[in-house]
Amino acid sequence: DVYADGHDEEAAELRWRHERENGWHRAPMSPAGGDRFRGVFEVPVQGQYRFCVRAAVDPYATWLRDAIRRLEAGQDLSVELLVGAELLAAAGGRARGGNRVALEAAAEDLRVTAEEGTDAAGAAGALRLAASPELRELFRRHPDPDWVVTAGPWPVLAERPRARFGSWYELFPRSAAEEPGRHGTFADVERRLDYVARLGFDVLYLPPIHPIGRTNRKGRDGAAGAGPSDPGSPWAIGGEEGGHEAVHPALGTLEDFDHLLAAAAARGIEVALDLAFQCSPDHPWVKEHPEWFRHLPDGTIRYAENPPKRYEDIYPIDFDTPEWPELWGALLEVVTTWVGRGVRIFRVDNPHTKPLAFWEWLIAAVRAADPDIVFLSEAFTRPALMHRLAKIGFSQSYTYFTWRNTKWEIEQYMEELHHGPAAEFMRPNLWPNTPDILTETLQRDGRAAFMARLVLAATMAASYGIYGPAFELQEHEPLQAGSEEYLHSEKYEIRHWDLGARHSLAEFVGRVNAVRRSNPALQHDRNLRRWGTDNEALVAYGRRWGTNRVVVVVNIDPHHRQSGWLELDPEWLGHGGDDAYVVHDLLTDSRYAWRGGRNFVLLDPAVVPAHVLVVEAGGRA
Amino acid sequence: DVYADGHDEEAAELRWRHERENGWHRAPMSPAGGDRFRGVFEVPVQGQYRFCVRAAVDPYATWLRDAIRRLEAGQDLSVELLVGAELLAAAGGRARGGNRVALEAAAEDLRVTAEEGTDAAGAAGALRLAASPELRELFRRHPDPDWVVTAGPWPVLAERPRARFGSWYELFPRSAAEEPGRHGTFADVERRLDYVARLGFDVLYLPPIHPIGRTNRKGRDGAAGAGPSDPGSPWAIGGEEGGHEAVHPALGTLEDFDHLLAAAAARGIEVALDLAFQCSPDHPWVKEHPEWFRHLPDGTIRYAENPPKRYEDIYPIDFDTPEWPELWGALLEVVTTWVGRGVRIFRVDNPHTKPLAFWEWLIAAVRAADPDIVFLSEAFTRPALMHRLAKIGFSQSYTYFTWRNTKWEIEQYMEELHHGPAAEFMRPNLWPNTPDILTETLQRDGRAAFMARLVLAATMAASYGIYGPAFELQEHEPLQAGSEEYLHSEKYEIRHWDLGARHSLAEFVGRVNAVRRSNPALQHDRNLRRWGTDNEALVAYGRRWGTNRVVVVVNIDPHHRQSGWLELDPEWLGHGGDDAYVVHDLLTDSRYAWRGGRNFVLLDPAVVPAHVLVVEAGGRA
Repeated sequence: DVYADGHDEEAAELRWRHERENGWHRAPMSPAGGDRFRGVFEVPVQGQYRFCVRAAVDPYATWLRDAIRRLEAGQDLSVELLVGAELLAAAGGRARGGNRVALEAAAEDLRVTAEEGTDAAGAAGALRLAASPELRELFRRHPDPDWVVTAGPWPVLAERPRARFGSWYELFPRSAAEEPGRHGTFADVERRLDYVARLGFDVLYLPPIHPIGRTNRKGRDGAAGAGPSDPGSPWAIGGEEGGHEAVHPALGTLEDFDHLLAAAAARGIEVALDLAFQCSPDHPWVKEHPEWFRHLPDGTIRYAENPPKRYEDIYPIDFDTPEWPELWGALLEVVTTWVGRGVRIFRVDNPHTKPLAFWEWLIAAVRAADPDIVFLSEAFTRPALMHRLAKIGFSQSYTYFTWRNTKWEIEQYMEELHHGPAAEFMRPNLWPNTPDILTETLQRDGRAAFMARLVLAATMAASYGIYGPAFELQEHEPLQAGSEEYLHSEKYEIRHWDLGARHSLAEFVGRVNAVRRSNPALQHDRNLRRWGTDNEALVAYGRRWGTNRVVVVVNIDPHHRQSGWLELDPEWLGHGGDDAYVVHDLLTDSRYAWRGGRNFVLLDPAVVPAHVLVVEAGGRA
Repeated sequence: DVYADGHDEEAAELRWRHERENGWHRAPMSPAGGDRFRGVFEVPVQGQYRFCVRAAVDPYATWLRDAIRRLEAGQDLSVELLVGAELLAAAGGRARGGNRVALEAAAEDLRVTAEEGTDAAGAAGALRLAASPELRELFRRHPDPDWVVTAGPWPVLAERPRARFGSWYELFPRSAAEEPGRHGTFADVERRLDYVARLGFDVLYLPPIHPIGRTNRKGRDGAAGAGPSDPGSPWAIGGEEGGHEAVHPALGTLEDFDHLLAAAAARGIEVALDLAFQCSPDHPWVKEHPEWFRHLPDGTIRYAENPPKRYEDIYPIDFDTPEWPELWGALLEVVTTWVGRGVRIFRVDNPHTKPLAFWEWLIAAVRAADPDIVFLSEAFTRPALMHRLAKIGFSQSYTYFTWRNTKWEIEQYMEELHHGPAAEFMRPNLWPNTPDILTETLQRDGRAAFMARLVLAATMAASYGIYGPAFELQEHEPLQAGSEEYLHSEKYEIRHWDLGARHSLAEFVGRVNAVRRSNPALQHDRNLRRWGTDNEALVAYGRRWGTNRVVVVVNIDPHHRQSGWLELDPEWLGHGGDDAYVVHDLLTDSRYAWRGGRNFVLLDPAVVPAHVLVVEAGGRA
């Protein structure tokens, strides 16, 4: 909003620069109705930009506007021409060199015309010269400082496209062996890459790959006291073999990891690592830097806990230790070490339990050296904190999606993610399941629920992910009734997955991801439009990017066929009134003849509980 | 939103003070779900308040919460009691005198209990002591400064109730004579007070009452060149008889004005004056202070204009003159002079054509001396500017209401006024007509349109006004087709009004204002709920304050009976499902038996085009 008292013409200019640039780029902003101005700038280079809005009244433009109106009304202009001359002469006084000469000459021209006595034709001629774009621009560039105000600067972070659009697949490397019973290795994960690629994923996210502590190691299903063959939780990081910069010997060597990275890259897959800044009691830092941990009055180190629960296999790090500069430096080194090996994406474990100032500093330091690095924040709940984490630098955030299941919940949440205030700075990443969360609907509602939740996650936001192969194999047994923990959780044991099982959704997942790759509308956020339906079980929305229009309809009732009428905005569709056109269901390769904004849909959860329809080009069918 | 990293308990405190107070009042804020906290403070004295939110993590509360959970889980507490003792001892180290002694003694108690070896009963007893509200409060009052952050201060202006709720009546004193042809006087206005009181108005707003210039005086209907008997525009302020501090001799003397003020006050009516900071060419300031006006290169003073239109009877003041300190001082003196005579309300003419900094300074200066003074901003359009004027101190603002006529327009605007961001700082004052604006619907649609627009204005906001007697006499002839100017506008001539005319809406206006006075729900803003109807001609909404519930339904079709079903929120109503209850139409004194949230209405514009229904107490009918 650009406004001033009075009736002066106002001009606004957008100024921006990349952090590595010295000067500001400038572009005029255009009036957009009312007092609103609109301006656009592009961010061709990754990194931090800043922009300002510089606004000014423009007495010369005001004078021109009014003088032209007077001329058209047949009024005498001689005094007005002198007013214009004074404005130009004053601007000349603020200019130098050639600009000064040009402004003063234009002032003199007006003055002479005025003094010679003007008829209408003479005045019109003088005004025509006075209205030249060059002269107006010259005046604008030499304003009285009192006329100018600047708002901002505000930051804009330009990240690479993967920070916005990506399909994530999480797997536990130790469960990747082809034969049951063997501890999986990086080489096994490498052999699984073709599967992951066939499923269409861009990011392969691995839980921590570091040595695992032995002290107080958790047994199966998180029981206290591990047996000798229990592998422990990958989040209990650090042992004799090393800490956050080492890899678990059972997974292979750092060279094996490098090989995996290269093999993934060859398939267009990036490997994301988990940044879990906590230590097992056996982590080398516990001995080397006891001052980095919190001590109890009896001299012991405090375990991680959520009273009365105790996570005795984990020591939290004391980020507030007086020795924080050394500690923070060591943590930064962990990240730069993996970045040095080629890792470009980090999923950050529990960022909200560490100081916000730490993340702000760490992320800025990493990005300053390499703007490619993407950080996903594992903050699911507490919107204020999620938003803050996004503002201080995280590229993406987990969301409440996992627990949004009714039509009302889903629609409210879509609206919030795409059009709420946080849409300006927080990119959502939607997960129907994670190793920590097996939701009630997945426990209870079978194949159709997995398919529906997959389609929702994959089409409601540009980034989404699944924890597999548990997801595509529809793993659904909870640890106990009422719990969201998996029974036989991979967090505590090695699992063997039958990827070829007939019931696997792998082929469906692959289709969904292919649809995402071929439709730009699904690769952006802030472009979702909710559509009304007359059936509470049918959720419908549209996504648009350029000419690509995708309509999604999901039957969220996993047990019954549901049908109803969809109300789409004809303007959005580009098909109003009674227009006939074709929509193509990319999940089933069916085509439907639709008419106008109101159309019938029927979805059978026993077949496919969703449509992902692209509105075919070519206008009328 | 109060949040911190980690799992610490958080506390928030509201702090506030009146500008005349030195210390801060304090009150704890309560958690309101998620990370949101809620606090309340009252503003018993008029004037400027400031408030802050002070938030802190509370490690002692965290410790207590966790220790209690551990105790309940049967865990050993001896080390935990030492942790609590350390926290208390540290707080003691930050305290003085008796507080220090108390904190250190409590620490010692915990330490002794821990060292004597505790069974569950001993630990429970120690925790009970540690959890005493006094000790918790004592700890909270001695925080480590690192734990505390303060946000704010933010301003709150407390004005008297009239700044919020008032029914305004505008009339031209010169048209107040009982006999046609005579120039009305303050005494005539005084004789009209009983009429104004019968109509139920609280504020009598008079256009400028000052001497009117003769140079370039406008004739009837704004024509250039007044005849000798033309009275000129009251906004062309100043003549030989004086300027902004004088009264027009034809209206009477300053003593007459004082008498009018007192007579109005005796009837509960306040007189509002017009602050129009501009001068006729005959204003004393033009000679005394030519430097307060803008001069053209030919030495003449620039008229007010909106090219190609010229208002040659008016010189704008040059607020940016180098002599601005003297000018601004003189303008402040104008206000304080009238305040000194007892005027407490000013309607400010065209504030957006004067510097915002001027108004901010003027209003603050006036209010510092007398917080009773209410300022109504005559800014109708340009929301950004209207909002800014509200933020810098205006009590109220004119609005777009005048031009909001369709159901969609009205509903959107209600939403904006009551629940948009500006509702936090801008109080609307709704006018169906003004001397400058005779809207199309009033020109065309007759009595029903006047009644419907009146009811909308009077029930959509706590403050509203009409320009009378033009309004109640349904004056509707425009200057010309397509114009919003009145034909024979009182701005340029003396009118005589037949107040006793049979078609007068005076009695209806009186009833509407009586309803406003007896229903607190209509005396506040930010309390409107829009109701759905199945008829595009029926606008419906509810207003609630405490137990007072008012439902308004307006038929905006002035030519046809309209009926339909109304959907009210049962929770708002206090009547759900199939409840029977009674609503009382205060305009017609009819009662209707309603059931639940869905009810039928029928409104005939030939009778009364609106319901103003109060939901009767007593629950079920």
